[in-house]
Amino acid sequence: MSSSQFDNVSVVKQANVYFDGRCVSHTVLLADGSRKTIGVIMPSSLTFTTGAPEVMECVAGACRVRLNGKEQWTTYAAGQSFAVPGDSSFDIVCDDAFHYVCHFE
Amino acid sequence: MSSSQFDNVSVVKQANVYFDGRCVSHTVLLADGSRKTIGVIMPSSLTFTTGAPEVMECVAGACRVRLNGKEQWTTYAAGQSFAVPGDSSFDIVCDDAFHYVCHFE
Repeated sequence: MSSSQFDNVSVVKQANVYFDGRCVSHTVLLADGSRKTIGVIMPSSLTFTTGAPEVMECVAGACRVRLNGKEQWTTYAAGQSFAVPGDSSFDIVCDDAFHYVCHFE
Repeated sequence: MSSSQFDNVSVVKQANVYFDGRCVSHTVLLADGSRKTIGVIMPSSLTFTTGAPEVMECVAGACRVRLNGKEQWTTYAAGQSFAVPGDSSFDIVCDDAFHYVCHFE
């Protein structure tokens, strides 16, 4: 689905820090005007809320995810992705550092 | 000295994670072939070792730094930089999230 890096992009120097540093990302601006974040979640159990719909692409590591309103947990590993509706939330559990790209729609 | 972002660069999707996530960075590759890392250090007291000489540019937040073999601690804030020799180390104390760009020489 993707290479190991983004080319010909802009990247914001200041990181986005969430949950006391258990999630850290940097913002990447693509030539087509789209915005993505590349980040890592440390071993933890967290709940993220969404504004815009997003697709979480797993770059390295693995996670277990439960979307808002669902009972089922699903495991995602490197190379897999999951979509989250806008104005929603998801629970995520990571046993090791989980690296991702977040695509906004 | 610098803008808030790098333009026309490549950025590696997978983060560099140090000290159990107390330091997280992403690698940026510039068109001139140079490599930098953009990162954040969570509130902590850490000792980093260097391979190549590097210049740490403070993007946001502040830190106190003591170079290897020195007794003096120096405080650096956004817009300031400090140089670290190669094959050396430095102690750094951050009270809040400290955002940096690391330039390698």
